[in-house]
Amino acid sequence: MRLGARVLLGSLMIAAAAPCLAGGPDDLQRAALVSAGLRTTGFRDAGAYRILAELLSRAGHRLSGSPGADSAVAVTAEMMRRFGADSVWLEPVMVPRWVRGKAERALLLLTKNQIPLAICALGGSIGTPPAGITAGVVEVRSFEELRSLGEAARGKIIFFNRAMDPTTVNTFEAYGGAVDQRSAGAVAAARAGGLAAIVRSVTTALDDVPHTGSLSYADTVRKIPAAAISTLGANLLSAALKSNPGLRLRLTLSCETLPDVPSANVVGEIRGSEKPEEIVVVGGHLDSWDKGTGAHDNGAGCAQAIEVLRLFRDLGLKPRRTVRAVMFMNEENGTRGGRAYAADPRRKKERHVALLECDRGGFAPRGFAVEADSGVLSRVRTWGVLFDALNAGQIRKGSGGVDISFMAKTGVPAFGLVVEMQRYFDYHHSANDTLEAVHPRELELGAIASALLCYLIAEHGL
Amino acid sequence: MRLGARVLLGSLMIAAAAPCLAGGPDDLQRAALVSAGLRTTGFRDAGAYRILAELLSRAGHRLSGSPGADSAVAVTAEMMRRFGADSVWLEPVMVPRWVRGKAERALLLLTKNQIPLAICALGGSIGTPPAGITAGVVEVRSFEELRSLGEAARGKIIFFNRAMDPTTVNTFEAYGGAVDQRSAGAVAAARAGGLAAIVRSVTTALDDVPHTGSLSYADTVRKIPAAAISTLGANLLSAALKSNPGLRLRLTLSCETLPDVPSANVVGEIRGSEKPEEIVVVGGHLDSWDKGTGAHDNGAGCAQAIEVLRLFRDLGLKPRRTVRAVMFMNEENGTRGGRAYAADPRRKKERHVALLECDRGGFAPRGFAVEADSGVLSRVRTWGVLFDALNAGQIRKGSGGVDISFMAKTGVPAFGLVVEMQRYFDYHHSANDTLEAVHPRELELGAIASALLCYLIAEHGL
Repeated sequence: MRLGARVLLGSLMIAAAAPCLAGGPDDLQRAALVSAGLRTTGFRDAGAYRILAELLSRAGHRLSGSPGADSAVAVTAEMMRRFGADSVWLEPVMVPRWVRGKAERALLLLTKNQIPLAICALGGSIGTPPAGITAGVVEVRSFEELRSLGEAARGKIIFFNRAMDPTTVNTFEAYGGAVDQRSAGAVAAARAGGLAAIVRSVTTALDDVPHTGSLSYADTVRKIPAAAISTLGANLLSAALKSNPGLRLRLTLSCETLPDVPSANVVGEIRGSEKPEEIVVVGGHLDSWDKGTGAHDNGAGCAQAIEVLRLFRDLGLKPRRTVRAVMFMNEENGTRGGRAYAADPRRKKERHVALLECDRGGFAPRGFAVEADSGVLSRVRTWGVLFDALNAGQIRKGSGGVDISFMAKTGVPAFGLVVEMQRYFDYHHSANDTLEAVHPRELELGAIASALLCYLIAEHGL
Repeated sequence: MRLGARVLLGSLMIAAAAPCLAGGPDDLQRAALVSAGLRTTGFRDAGAYRILAELLSRAGHRLSGSPGADSAVAVTAEMMRRFGADSVWLEPVMVPRWVRGKAERALLLLTKNQIPLAICALGGSIGTPPAGITAGVVEVRSFEELRSLGEAARGKIIFFNRAMDPTTVNTFEAYGGAVDQRSAGAVAAARAGGLAAIVRSVTTALDDVPHTGSLSYADTVRKIPAAAISTLGANLLSAALKSNPGLRLRLTLSCETLPDVPSANVVGEIRGSEKPEEIVVVGGHLDSWDKGTGAHDNGAGCAQAIEVLRLFRDLGLKPRRTVRAVMFMNEENGTRGGRAYAADPRRKKERHVALLECDRGGFAPRGFAVEADSGVLSRVRTWGVLFDALNAGQIRKGSGGVDISFMAKTGVPAFGLVVEMQRYFDYHHSANDTLEAVHPRELELGAIASALLCYLIAEHGL
């Protein structure tokens, strides 16, 4: 790669500012040059955005077991070959096959008319009978409130209407404070004698778009159908219940779970020149929900991981350790891919040095969450000045990501790309999550920061 | 204000982590409580976004001297009264009155047809004759290149086509590396014997929207008309010139500069309870360009400054020093408001403690740029943990802002709210800069961080 005088000067200034990096001033200078090359090549080509656009346009949404997911396996394998992997392979995994079907309706039954509410089935939900479930509705904000209703909940549709706390700065924390209604609402509603559950969309947006996501059933509890309702729809339903507590609602869902089907994680790597068996993983999850096209969640992370390979190839970087991009399958409704990757017999011949997951949306990066001991954290912080130059210098303890968590449990240091988070849950799991919601420079900067972290670890270890 | 146990617990944890803040643990605890109150009230009401929406809907664009600017003076004065200022007044200032007029056209004259290019007059430009200027075009990327053309530039329309450097992470830096073409292109083109200047829009976006902005003329150089062309238009023009260097273009602009007109800075404050003559300013600029509605530039900053007052009022905060919101007039094409504010005789009876400007767009905050000595910087950094909790803990040396720079020159510490910057220049000075481009939570978080900084300085000084 050709790097001009300005880049060199910049790198020397960084060298002067942070003498304790990597293996010494030479390593540091080289890392600063690599960073400049990554920026130049990345921003020039907007590679991550192009990769994402191609994935979304060729595969569409990628719900596990769907034709889109099958396409995505083929498309990303082909792109990894095209964009610089030394080798690409699939690691088969069986995945759940849940299909939404055509009917997805909720009607408020008033005396003179029927008002449709914007809903969608929660992933994994059973369907209703073809004629739907018609019942009264009780609104609750918590499982405690539901239990306190006693018999009043029996035979009703249970409406969980606790909003994400808008006053929390950390939107992931606010999400965590509301998502129990979606994941465990069907079981709680069934225990209370309810016939179905309707859950306020777990989103920061106030609009008429429902946000899906997975639910869990319990073996010992009757399965009942469950749907998400848009936040505007939830407000409307709540207001309608206040003026007419006896109103009835008809919920019709045609979703069903079919037998598991074969799918795969897609793996591509640039083999290390000195320690090929030592591996740095960068990954996202290839599956998505079937609303929108899963652009942020998590086409973005897959595109960034492929872009890491492309950047290495275009810059002629030959890392000492292997840099491997992994498209994990089935994060959304089963985490089969993440589990399978960790359990695969191939792992026995490998030593994973670090795992990086990009699954917080394709927004401007802030830095990295580090799930490792304080020695690793300190080590990575010595590289902070390099990430500062990318506006991504915030290096803190935190969770890496769902897909890599299964291998992280065995002690491999895990990293999560942390990005600006105020917009993410506007899009998450909904028809809003399309390419238009992704900014090319923000996405690319995340890919550049990820590539730099991979480079540093692949060159210098942890 | 009512603050729950969780907030208290959070504040105590912060107190334990940073013992050296403000005036001791009590001050620190109180500041953490105030921050929690700001978050709760701010996010609950999305106040900054509502204020911005009202400003844009009632005033529209606010080019200095325009009816929209007059409306904006009245609207923001009224809103400041409504939302919590103890007193509100106008500080009159004469401003330039440049009007775009109706004609704004560039036509590529081909043998068989004419291709319109997306252009707009640069602010301050003279118009063309009514029939336009028809001439050949020479493309250059720099003033040096233009000079090297010698006589080849004479009688031509000079097309400045140097793009913002996409490989620079800091978009403000990239802007600075291209904006000379816009500000000084007309003078350079006239010196070279050119008839008019067309400048590639200074933007990160690749689209068909031209971005305006001010130009300067020199007293000793003939004035010629100048327009911005969209980036897609610039690419088209450049390609057309490559295949046909002799092609001609007709530029028609009807803009003109009328005599100066009266306008005003709008000032509203909450008077300090102990040291009312000591003042903390938070401000944005009220004028905008006449494309779009100046939502980010800089309705956002005005709305955030008014929101600071609203938050103080709603939380019942009585700062020791005066907190003053200033809507500066005419930042875009004259900086008359900023100069007038600094020079106003009223300032003689006042002592300004700090100046904060929010003029980098209404995006998620990162922290503050501090234009002050290292003692002030260190002082503010002792508050860093509080800003970290708002994801705005990056406190670094840097420029405060244009409007406050005139008073900052006298030694008053100046602060600039630093925000995520990858999207800003997509919108800047163009029809793209509308309310839809602003995210309510990102805007509010900037207001909350600004309010907290004002509170800390008003309570504890620098």
